[in-house]
Amino acid sequence: MNKHAIAIHGGAGTILKSQITVEKEGAYKKGLLAALQAGNEILEKGGTSLDAVEAAIISLEDNPLFNAGKGSVFTHEGKHEMDAALMNGKDLKAGAVAGVLHIKNPVKLARAVMDQSDNVLLVGDGAMAFAAKMHLQFEDEKYFFSQHRLDQLKEIQDTDTMQMDHADKDADGMLKKKIGTVGAVALDIHGNISAGTSTGGMTNKRYGRVGDTPIIGAGTYANNTTCAISCTGVGEYFIRSVVAYDISCLMEYKGLTLEEACNEVVLKKLVDFGGEGGLIAIDAEGNVQMPFNSEGMYRGMKKAGEDYVVGIYRAE
Amino acid sequence: MNKHAIAIHGGAGTILKSQITVEKEGAYKKGLLAALQAGNEILEKGGTSLDAVEAAIISLEDNPLFNAGKGSVFTHEGKHEMDAALMNGKDLKAGAVAGVLHIKNPVKLARAVMDQSDNVLLVGDGAMAFAAKMHLQFEDEKYFFSQHRLDQLKEIQDTDTMQMDHADKDADGMLKKKIGTVGAVALDIHGNISAGTSTGGMTNKRYGRVGDTPIIGAGTYANNTTCAISCTGVGEYFIRSVVAYDISCLMEYKGLTLEEACNEVVLKKLVDFGGEGGLIAIDAEGNVQMPFNSEGMYRGMKKAGEDYVVGIYRAE
Repeated sequence: MNKHAIAIHGGAGTILKSQITVEKEGAYKKGLLAALQAGNEILEKGGTSLDAVEAAIISLEDNPLFNAGKGSVFTHEGKHEMDAALMNGKDLKAGAVAGVLHIKNPVKLARAVMDQSDNVLLVGDGAMAFAAKMHLQFEDEKYFFSQHRLDQLKEIQDTDTMQMDHADKDADGMLKKKIGTVGAVALDIHGNISAGTSTGGMTNKRYGRVGDTPIIGAGTYANNTTCAISCTGVGEYFIRSVVAYDISCLMEYKGLTLEEACNEVVLKKLVDFGGEGGLIAIDAEGNVQMPFNSEGMYRGMKKAGEDYVVGIYRAE
Repeated sequence: MNKHAIAIHGGAGTILKSQITVEKEGAYKKGLLAALQAGNEILEKGGTSLDAVEAAIISLEDNPLFNAGKGSVFTHEGKHEMDAALMNGKDLKAGAVAGVLHIKNPVKLARAVMDQSDNVLLVGDGAMAFAAKMHLQFEDEKYFFSQHRLDQLKEIQDTDTMQMDHADKDADGMLKKKIGTVGAVALDIHGNISAGTSTGGMTNKRYGRVGDTPIIGAGTYANNTTCAISCTGVGEYFIRSVVAYDISCLMEYKGLTLEEACNEVVLKKLVDFGGEGGLIAIDAEGNVQMPFNSEGMYRGMKKAGEDYVVGIYRAE
């Protein structure tokens, strides 16, 4: 088997072509392409899907445009609390972290949890102590600061309820709902698939809120016998629907194809349930699906021998 | 529909009749019976399965014999970090907390997250701030202290690896592996099922480790159309296997009965995977299953019109 493929996402939500400048669109597409290239380069050299997923996510975490790592949104208290997860479809090994601050690349911490501990999920101060022990890179608040993200917080900081998504107002005052998360799934030439997800969560989140990103089975899942999945959306609905594992089970127990299972969950079950968002999915045959029920989803894919594909809006 | 039923567990592991005194056995059984009675009383009066599950878990959290609430084990740093979750099978609402200290009844905090917030999972300091806002009861370290638990910690505190389970040595020096967690599942006369789980985690756990208990789909899950599940075992394996939702999917997508699905997951898949533990399960017909692949599991059930049943070992 010599096929390889990678798919990525950079968040879903109300992303309309009419409300985005050509310059900004170009910047997003450039960021998606760079992440795909980082992953594809590893796959082409015969590297593992896990390494490719991690490399693609690091590229997105380092890009201030996406809500993960450097570009993470502000919490209610004006901090950046991040979550991340990785899963290897070959042996079902997984690593995840939630509620970590100051970590430059939360996906690297998830990888360290997977490789260097007996655990799957570490949270908060304890996870940061583990990061220090693993000699991972810490950054101060300045690294994560952007005026854009602070403006997003200030717009809703005084609201009493916790805000589910951050909201950009454009020139004509329309709200653009955007659900920030980044993720990647990949198939390597050895036939193994992997998945990973990383996020700064929701602007104005409080009380140590954690979404679906670091929850194995909800926001992130990988299993060679079925699929590898990374989700982006309103996390609470994705947790309650156990979205990623649901797709896996529809394939394993009901015999659905990857495409059928993705459509069933994202375009039917989640829509009925009120769960806005999308996901990227891959199987061991190299099939890729990138369904979403929101207006748009930052996404891209690259299969061996084929061109790079990146997209933002629904119809393209 | 006038059937109602409740089942509970108080942890699984290497619990052998030859290694437990008659007095201790009696104390455990009394604790299980009291928890069943607390839940059954609510169900008999026409209360909800969610209230019954919460009441049974509060009874177990208040009992120093079980590893949850008051009886929580010590972390490596000599603290008590607790996790809990609740899920309502009627509307798939869920609430969970992880890594909380000083909270007398973590299951009440999970309930508050479910009822009083837009979120599903809160962790660490943020979750404790939410508990304070909800006026939940806090307790100091003294409340959670027991010499027995401290001895368990001291025995393994200097080991370099994180200890998966706490280990009691009995008179003849044999290790008794015991995986502490408490949980309940119930069916009410309205035909709704619910599940809940609460734990102090593993003795000597570090780095903010969180197990399967607060992970919806892994340690806790409820859905009227399939089943309500509460797990106890080595959490990492239960997370990677998405145990609770796996049983639900085997019923929904493969048409297995509750019994068949429980046996498939606990007695086959988990055994092959190396995941020691067990779970309690109920469906909307009032069927109850309490499978475990360990030597024993503290457990009990009470169906309307039938006697109370409590058990500890494999053959009884």
